[in-house]
Amino acid sequence: MTRNIRVEELTQRPVEKQKIEVVERKGLGHPDSVADGIAEEISRALCKEYIERFGRVLHHNTDKIQIVAGRSRPAFGGGEVIQPQYILLTGRATRVCGDVEVPVDAIALRTARNHLKRALRNLDLDTHVIIDCKIGTGSADLCDIFDRDASTVPSANDTSYGVGYAPLSETERIVYSTEQELLSLRSRIPAIGEDIKVMGLREDDTIYLTIACAMVDRYIDDLDHYVETKKEIVEEISAKAQSMTRRRVDVQMNVGDNIATGSVYITVTGTSAEMGDDGAVGRGNRANGLITPNRPMSLEATSGKNPINHVGKIYNLLSNLIAKEIAEEVDGVEEVYVKILSQIGKPISQPHIASVQLVLKEGVRLSSAHARAREITDRWLEDIPRVQQMIFHGELQTY
Amino acid sequence: MTRNIRVEELTQRPVEKQKIEVVERKGLGHPDSVADGIAEEISRALCKEYIERFGRVLHHNTDKIQIVAGRSRPAFGGGEVIQPQYILLTGRATRVCGDVEVPVDAIALRTARNHLKRALRNLDLDTHVIIDCKIGTGSADLCDIFDRDASTVPSANDTSYGVGYAPLSETERIVYSTEQELLSLRSRIPAIGEDIKVMGLREDDTIYLTIACAMVDRYIDDLDHYVETKKEIVEEISAKAQSMTRRRVDVQMNVGDNIATGSVYITVTGTSAEMGDDGAVGRGNRANGLITPNRPMSLEATSGKNPINHVGKIYNLLSNLIAKEIAEEVDGVEEVYVKILSQIGKPISQPHIASVQLVLKEGVRLSSAHARAREITDRWLEDIPRVQQMIFHGELQTY
Amino acid sequence: MTRNIRVEELTQRPVEKQKIEVVERKGLGHPDSVADGIAEEISRALCKEYIERFGRVLHHNTDKIQIVAGRSRPAFGGGEVIQPQYILLTGRATRVCGDVEVPVDAIALRTARNHLKRALRNLDLDTHVIIDCKIGTGSADLCDIFDRDASTVPSANDTSYGVGYAPLSETERIVYSTEQELLSLRSRIPAIGEDIKVMGLREDDTIYLTIACAMVDRYIDDLDHYVETKKEIVEEISAKAQSMTRRRVDVQMNVGDNIATGSVYITVTGTSAEMGDDGAVGRGNRANGLITPNRPMSLEATSGKNPINHVGKIYNLLSNLIAKEIAEEVDGVEEVYVKILSQIGKPISQPHIASVQLVLKEGVRLSSAHARAREITDRWLEDIPRVQQMIFHGELQTY
Amino acid sequence: MTRNIRVEELTQRPVEKQKIEVVERKGLGHPDSVADGIAEEISRALCKEYIERFGRVLHHNTDKIQIVAGRSRPAFGGGEVIQPQYILLTGRATRVCGDVEVPVDAIALRTARNHLKRALRNLDLDTHVIIDCKIGTGSADLCDIFDRDASTVPSANDTSYGVGYAPLSETERIVYSTEQELLSLRSRIPAIGEDIKVMGLREDDTIYLTIACAMVDRYIDDLDHYVETKKEIVEEISAKAQSMTRRRVDVQMNVGDNIATGSVYITVTGTSAEMGDDGAVGRGNRANGLITPNRPMSLEATSGKNPINHVGKIYNLLSNLIAKEIAEEVDGVEEVYVKILSQIGKPISQPHIASVQLVLKEGVRLSSAHARAREITDRWLEDIPRVQQMIFHGELQTY
Repeated sequence: MTRNIRVEELTQRPVEKQKIEVVERKGLGHPDSVADGIAEEISRALCKEYIERFGRVLHHNTDKIQIVAGRSRPAFGGGEVIQPQYILLTGRATRVCGDVEVPVDAIALRTARNHLKRALRNLDLDTHVIIDCKIGTGSADLCDIFDRDASTVPSANDTSYGVGYAPLSETERIVYSTEQELLSLRSRIPAIGEDIKVMGLREDDTIYLTIACAMVDRYIDDLDHYVETKKEIVEEISAKAQSMTRRRVDVQMNVGDNIATGSVYITVTGTSAEMGDDGAVGRGNRANGLITPNRPMSLEATSGKNPINHVGKIYNLLSNLIAKEIAEEVDGVEEVYVKILSQIGKPISQPHIASVQLVLKEGVRLSSAHARAREITDRWLEDIPRVQQMIFHGELQTY
Repeated sequence: MTRNIRVEELTQRPVEKQKIEVVERKGLGHPDSVADGIAEEISRALCKEYIERFGRVLHHNTDKIQIVAGRSRPAFGGGEVIQPQYILLTGRATRVCGDVEVPVDAIALRTARNHLKRALRNLDLDTHVIIDCKIGTGSADLCDIFDRDASTVPSANDTSYGVGYAPLSETERIVYSTEQELLSLRSRIPAIGEDIKVMGLREDDTIYLTIACAMVDRYIDDLDHYVETKKEIVEEISAKAQSMTRRRVDVQMNVGDNIATGSVYITVTGTSAEMGDDGAVGRGNRANGLITPNRPMSLEATSGKNPINHVGKIYNLLSNLIAKEIAEEVDGVEEVYVKILSQIGKPISQPHIASVQLVLKEGVRLSSAHARAREITDRWLEDIPRVQQMIFHGELQTY
Repeated sequence: MTRNIRVEELTQRPVEKQKIEVVERKGLGHPDSVADGIAEEISRALCKEYIERFGRVLHHNTDKIQIVAGRSRPAFGGGEVIQPQYILLTGRATRVCGDVEVPVDAIALRTARNHLKRALRNLDLDTHVIIDCKIGTGSADLCDIFDRDASTVPSANDTSYGVGYAPLSETERIVYSTEQELLSLRSRIPAIGEDIKVMGLREDDTIYLTIACAMVDRYIDDLDHYVETKKEIVEEISAKAQSMTRRRVDVQMNVGDNIATGSVYITVTGTSAEMGDDGAVGRGNRANGLITPNRPMSLEATSGKNPINHVGKIYNLLSNLIAKEIAEEVDGVEEVYVKILSQIGKPISQPHIASVQLVLKEGVRLSSAHARAREITDRWLEDIPRVQQMIFHGELQTY
Repeated sequence: MTRNIRVEELTQRPVEKQKIEVVERKGLGHPDSVADGIAEEISRALCKEYIERFGRVLHHNTDKIQIVAGRSRPAFGGGEVIQPQYILLTGRATRVCGDVEVPVDAIALRTARNHLKRALRNLDLDTHVIIDCKIGTGSADLCDIFDRDASTVPSANDTSYGVGYAPLSETERIVYSTEQELLSLRSRIPAIGEDIKVMGLREDDTIYLTIACAMVDRYIDDLDHYVETKKEIVEEISAKAQSMTRRRVDVQMNVGDNIATGSVYITVTGTSAEMGDDGAVGRGNRANGLITPNRPMSLEATSGKNPINHVGKIYNLLSNLIAKEIAEEVDGVEEVYVKILSQIGKPISQPHIASVQLVLKEGVRLSSAHARAREITDRWLEDIPRVQQMIFHGELQTY
């Protein structure tokens, strides 16, 4: 069956050439990212378990994780957590199939703990966090919702859509790698916590990076040490960012600090969730790891949803894969925007519409790119099983 | 101090003229909207309480509400709820100021129940829902974070941004009013539940409306009655939508129904949260009541945040107000996009940048609109206290 | 099969003739009694539901209810609840039998709310309490654990025992009726809250009654009014108690009050659970409504357990019924103590042992009472189905 | 001030000479005992913390711990936990004193985990259990409720009583040591789980021990191995018990097993809380480690209460200490029963009454024992600070 794929030219100034650009990334240990990470890891762990036990993935969606912040008393040299954060694992998952019962809650708990270990290395899992689990179940017969015959294409779970684009702008790349750089600096500067937020503003040819980074108190002796450490980090980040662009880069960090009063951004555990900042799935980065108000975005959370029939997940990832390949492979394309819309009950390989919008380089005509863009889109829609494999294996970023 | 306001022309095809447009609205009783509604109402109730007791709003953010779905057995003529939904109220609020203690949890509980009564009139609050409350507190001295001197402008709570645009496209207006129409039809067709989702797709000059509406089982006698009722609703909605446009309108409802097997979308309470669909704040409609992937969007939840210094709320509402006034008052403007970016600790009336992008009608030059657009933006930034009043009084929609 | 019933004489001074006697009753609104009451009402509601749907009671035990106290600010004329109490309903109940699903949680919630309405008439169910539900389920096949054949005697669920005695001593009767009298005084003195604790101490021929009664603030204008009201209550109770005995009665109430500092026992809702006093099933009154350290007691909670095979419930109620009938019907018996011990898996009508100990009146010989006591015990063991009916119909007190 | 101590002779047949005696012990890993253990350890940890920070113990009561059972699938060779148990820590504790904030929740969590490690060595803390914490707080000024002046005697928190007796009967000693023996057998027979219940029934000169012991599945290969292991344990226990008495001992274990159908008592973690058995503080052993319906008992939970002014704890421990010393030190005493009753607000060293009842050996007259018994009682009441020290240091058993 022919797919409803629409390729059109989009007449707009490419983001790179707009005067104002805003880009944000919430880092690995930001409460919203932690929620995303736990959600996605639980989904992956369940997929693995289902495949081992039943040879196929059963129905689940674990995209509702709520992090309720705790209370702490950070102090130079090492403070303490007063009240642990509370993490509520919710969502739903098939628990029984035939006479086999799947230890859904035990898997969810273990996975959540393992992810926290990776994402927040200063968090003491025994005393800094309470993990509760209210994962529901579906109807008894849900274990057959995904057809046993792997060759059948699943039907869309909902009327929903996914969005993607390519390539990343320079500012986007810089914002993204700023967080990566901070994480890699931890080996030298252990005071860097994983709760990082990078806000990038490009005004014409100046890129302002405003970094919030939860510093870990036990590695900082006093206020002087804090000031020094911050200065060192800003220098490292500036150098790294400047090496990526010819534009002017201006880096500021923890701008809410008040050195005079000694009120600075230190934490016991490296995350603001220890003191007042809640987190939830789908409130942070989009599937490409960024928040980009200059770009079309989907509000569908990608993390934690099942990779079999949840179009809110699959179409977001797919849109980005399609956009990326078109941007890389089709000559004359400056920017690609992809939107894929499902209708509940229809095969996911047959979207209601797949819209591909191309911003072409000067002088390029749509006709030269049209066929190739269409073909790439069509192939990826055909290849959804491969995308699902990539999701199982954790090859696709979701936040 | 001069504000950093940037007005620029945006060269792009207006959404109304693009070939593909996707617009979504989650209705009043959709789990995500219910979460938004509870969050916002609690914030408003707290504002009222704080003002009565202390003459000013104290610190709070109640923008983390999680709805964990229950289980039900709907049946024609009236089924039953097996397991109640679970609603977790979280966030934080100042509880003590001087020696006055504010009954935060009692207020939150009462407000949540009242909102549920309004939003889901078939929900039995005594047996269909569990409302739990884990609203935290801030530091003891937080009651002074908002200055007592009302003439002082508060500082931004975070480095964040808001986004708005105007005017609504035809498809956007139709999607929005489709839900309103469904709600008003309830007096005649009581089977219409409030959990409604309207997905609009415009392909060139055809507008496809895909409606999901949780029908209430007790008002439907049997499958025939269901089919009839659905037909009646589709006719009403089609007529209403068609009256708003010259484009062709195609309406489908509950497309996941399988009449042959009798598997149709009925519920006991009029919301899918009774059976498997979770909800959370900030995962649904943006502040203008719509989800619009063709438009720039902010991921900041608007609902539930404090209206004093939370830029994630204030700037989203402000951006829409500015965009709306420019679109209405400035000649030659076809579309307006507004982004406002804060920097933590700076006065909220002095954003890091306020970017106004104008899509001009053919032949109009930026210079003719520039000054007026700037002036409007500047005035609204000056008038933030008025916006806060509008929020207190519930005059601004947040979801 | 002959039952292992042992009737023996107990040589001891009857409680009525001991010099020191301690008796306690926790009233209807005491947090432990509220927990007991909710537990028992949920069990009864489930029994009713199971019988209606399946013609027989299915497996359940809802004897674990935890009340976590809240916070309040009582004040003369009417204070407020700051933080609601939190009531956690736990235990387990069969949810599915065949393809019928029982709305266990909905029933539990509704029942808990109804009981609270009855037990604490000043509690506002919408804002003063959070009711959460974590009732678990058993194995899938548990719906067959109780045989469908009503003529079969169920097997004991555990190796456990029940204890009972008769008759009540004078002090026991006075302590018990003191609470009843306080409840009936409410129509005239609405300030009397239902959270009542009556501690009775008899030293030789003086009975000291120490009453704690949570007064309801809105019905008390000021400290003077409080003092007056308390005086009035003490007079009423003294008169009532004195009318029941020739011994001297000394009544004191709310002895922790400090009138000088104005620190007195007032509450917003009539229960101390609003401010610091937690409650749990099985921590208060024994099945006869009293706590009696001078008597043998069972630690098995009676409330909330299933009346089919839970010997912790059935044997406690049975022991009291047997003791009561022997005390009333057998001549020469001054006191009767009954203990019944089960062994897991054996029919409940065939206890491991039923021990009947008789304190005989002077000059009476065991032989004259032995046969009749044995016969009564044997008949009640035979009549367990009748006891189960009495439990279903709420004819037997459990706390 | 003279204390109200009443010493009287109790004319009754000593338990050792009664025909029927029932004694029960819930072992270390029984859900009720686990709840008791966590409660007591948290109280001790808080005492330690308070003393370190403030030089004195602050107000707290952590005697409300609820264990909600999970679900498991045990299997020979090693099964799995499907749904973790849920442990709710409640109660209340002073959190703030001056400007020092005590990390109550963090301490409670850590302590609970440590106790679980000790009590249930086959429990995987990462996946087999969810620990939630809802410990409340008192009024702001509660940090001064216990006088700073250590020489002042605290006032009773409530009108309540404690009960104790001595010496243990032979059956009591055997029941108690049977559990100890099982625990020490673990080094040789690792399949022995800590969830043990020993029910002792003495009928004349036969002692029937009915043991329930949750066997750990991973250490048992198959049904034959189970049967063998059980046989070995019964032999060991019989030998041990027989060595303690001249009476006949009959030991049975896991009598609910059905070898024919293969339905036997195995567990994954060594506790029945993994599958359906809830637990709560104060529902199991009394302060002397036993449940003894032949003896007077207090229903006041001893574990988890503060050792400063909670008479429910102090008087239970004190009564046992007094009884023990009288039984050991005063000639001619066969049994001692002690009851101590408080009145709220009065110094705990001045009880409303301390009743000492002596069952004397044949021919002994009360006058010869009276003075010495009174003196011992008086001295212990004077020595309450020493008892408190013993509690801090964990020298007194509470369950």
